[in-house]
Amino acid sequence: MSKNKIYKPRPISGFPEWLPEIRRVEQQWLDHFRKIFESYGFCSIETAAVEEIEVLLAKGETDKEIYTLTRLQADEKDKSDARLALHFDQTVPFARYTALNFNNIVFPFKRYQMQKVWRGERPQLGREREFYQCDIDVIAVDNLPLHFDAEMPAVIYEALDGLDIGRVQIKINNRKIICGLLEFLNIDEVILTTRIIDKLDKIGEDEVRKQLASEINLEDKQIDLILQLSIIKTRNPVELENEVKKLNVDNEKFDEGLKELVFVLKQLQHLPEHAVIVDLSVVRGLDYYTGTVYETNLLDIPEFTSSVCSGGRYDDLAGGYINKHLPGVGISIGLTRLFGVLLENGYIKNKKMSPAEILMVLPSEDRRMQAYQTAHALRKNGFNVEMYHAPQKIKKQIAYAEKKGIKYVWFPPFDDEGEHEVKTLDTGEQKKTTPDSWIINEKS
Amino acid sequence: MSKNKIYKPRPISGFPEWLPEIRRVEQQWLDHFRKIFESYGFCSIETAAVEEIEVLLAKGETDKEIYTLTRLQADEKDKSDARLALHFDQTVPFARYTALNFNNIVFPFKRYQMQKVWRGERPQLGREREFYQCDIDVIAVDNLPLHFDAEMPAVIYEALDGLDIGRVQIKINNRKIICGLLEFLNIDEVILTTRIIDKLDKIGEDEVRKQLASEINLEDKQIDLILQLSIIKTRNPVELENEVKKLNVDNEKFDEGLKELVFVLKQLQHLPEHAVIVDLSVVRGLDYYTGTVYETNLLDIPEFTSSVCSGGRYDDLAGGYINKHLPGVGISIGLTRLFGVLLENGYIKNKKMSPAEILMVLPSEDRRMQAYQTAHALRKNGFNVEMYHAPQKIKKQIAYAEKKGIKYVWFPPFDDEGEHEVKTLDTGEQKKTTPDSWIINEKS
Repeated sequence: MSKNKIYKPRPISGFPEWLPEIRRVEQQWLDHFRKIFESYGFCSIETAAVEEIEVLLAKGETDKEIYTLTRLQADEKDKSDARLALHFDQTVPFARYTALNFNNIVFPFKRYQMQKVWRGERPQLGREREFYQCDIDVIAVDNLPLHFDAEMPAVIYEALDGLDIGRVQIKINNRKIICGLLEFLNIDEVILTTRIIDKLDKIGEDEVRKQLASEINLEDKQIDLILQLSIIKTRNPVELENEVKKLNVDNEKFDEGLKELVFVLKQLQHLPEHAVIVDLSVVRGLDYYTGTVYETNLLDIPEFTSSVCSGGRYDDLAGGYINKHLPGVGISIGLTRLFGVLLENGYIKNKKMSPAEILMVLPSEDRRMQAYQTAHALRKNGFNVEMYHAPQKIKKQIAYAEKKGIKYVWFPPFDDEGEHEVKTLDTGEQKKTTPDSWIINEKS
Repeated sequence: MSKNKIYKPRPISGFPEWLPEIRRVEQQWLDHFRKIFESYGFCSIETAAVEEIEVLLAKGETDKEIYTLTRLQADEKDKSDARLALHFDQTVPFARYTALNFNNIVFPFKRYQMQKVWRGERPQLGREREFYQCDIDVIAVDNLPLHFDAEMPAVIYEALDGLDIGRVQIKINNRKIICGLLEFLNIDEVILTTRIIDKLDKIGEDEVRKQLASEINLEDKQIDLILQLSIIKTRNPVELENEVKKLNVDNEKFDEGLKELVFVLKQLQHLPEHAVIVDLSVVRGLDYYTGTVYETNLLDIPEFTSSVCSGGRYDDLAGGYINKHLPGVGISIGLTRLFGVLLENGYIKNKKMSPAEILMVLPSEDRRMQAYQTAHALRKNGFNVEMYHAPQKIKKQIAYAEKKGIKYVWFPPFDDEGEHEVKTLDTGEQKKTTPDSWIINEKS
């Protein structure tokens, strides 16, 4: 026993950590996202965990969430790192990275980025201080075809649909429609108004009506038209066009938004019926988005009520950092947030701690070399094999495999005349084999 | 053009970032490490980026490298995150994680961890402020078989040998040998003495002799024996035993160390001749290690002179955090450090920016649906396919594929009577195909 003075560590609130068997699932999710993102040609980048504070604050607003860095015993003369802070999302770093590397990037630039970000918020379930975000964006110089707006939901649907979390539904809208309507109605308070509309699903029609009247002083006729538009939900491009045109809004931006939205919806007809829906109340709080916007809901997970994954089209990614016009479209999965809620509610059940498929038993000291060689041969053929290094009781070795979730226990010959045997733990079946025949069988 | 005020970002010294084509190579390295680690049954964990400062300082010494966190606009009443700092390695977090989750872990606990760590050092090539470490450790309760000491170099050799960086050589020693010798010679200054011996390869015999005399006041006879021991280098266990026994050192710890080292060396005879060497001058500065120690050199990369990967056996991992005796053995690859030096010296040459293997050409607007369907079918069969969304000149589309390093350009039929064709960019060869026959051919 150690006789040191003991400092008993505590979990740090807001900084989630998983046991190995849960981390395995998280890693499988990350791998799956990566596979889908790469299958559409998105390339990986990672940016530094830190940014200059000036870069992070270029857009304002978020300053209270930022963690700044200080060296515990900084050299007084060295001020080089005085102004660093941890990034709180991946959009600002992506914009800064693109500006910095502009001449070495081929556009349209399709990138994915799966890193941890940090926010000094008050921690609560689904709102951590450290969490993974998984983002994809496409940006181009001056012009980006609208077809990319349709590619985003296709990619995201494939990414989320592969997770075994029930039905995924992507809600789509185009901010030009509501902005055009407000223009048509001579309403200037675009940000405030859209923020209220965005709450339609949560607070209901009556409350939206009340807030639009009390907070923005809109007239009943204005509110009527806004609500008639906002309640439209459809999967059908023809129906969408008909319903919206009934409102008789005469505005150029409005028409452009509708045309774009119909176009995007048409491109998504190959996805399952439930996968996509146009919902004209989805307008996203951020004025940052200028066209298509997305939100994503899980239809079969009642505990997860907010959007898993959101994003949209923006006019200019990096205007604050470079004198180029870089329009883009992107979407972001809040991985840790989703994962944490699913875990908490019992949807994530993996109990396999070890990546090994086979535990190589060591029957006795004199069989060690044969056990090693067998393990080695299996590894060379792509199997994950953990070696039990101590020649303890066979029962103990099998129990170890069971506790670690290892499927097969391999017994090398117990003597020179013996044969290899493999036991499948969940069925209890045990049969004779050889490394060669095992490799051939399992690979076919 | 944007009319915003522009804040031109600069690269942040010590926080390396790669272009997509270089990030691809880094990701391939990480994937390769992971594959090898998992093939030996190591499981993945990730710990929070932060630790309580008290946890980080439990071992003292490193305080000046630590970055502490402050919320930019902290709530005055909320002191919950007042004492956090970024981790500077993965050993302290691993020890803390093990102590915290002790009852939910199956021992021996084999884990790998590949995360970024942060040190507020003065940046220079090969010494960054943010870098990836790739660590493997095995820990057990009370006893860990010595065979794990031999498994470590086998794993690390496979991991590094797969990187196409020339010959890898792992130097092995056992600290008990030198500590036993110092005991035998009645020398108390173990840390100081071993630190001088450790520099033998760099500063040479004469300088070591001088420093041992001037800094620790050792007598010539003592120094002679230390040097006779330290210059021993061999691949052969029998030779090792003979050479060391010639010194006639009568000390129990010394004998134990030799026995362990011979044992480990014998287990590694299956590795190539150059892969392993016992070098009795390798003692590692840290008194933290208590038995086997490792260092790793690249024999064919003269620009990388220090150890790529080091580690050893320790008596007690988490004694500062839990009242349990947890001996272990571990090794750590300084990935970013190695990667940065190789990149700087032209050893890393990948120029493939995109993960896509195929660019799907869009010949004209009316072929769009067919192009999409073809891309979709290929993706479903495991190919990475980027779609060119704008029906621009074919030449422009091919040039795009070339710039992104995409190998094949796929032309869907230009009209209803046409056929699919695929051009291989590096050979210029172009031939007719169908999605079905392509999938069958490429997969076989």
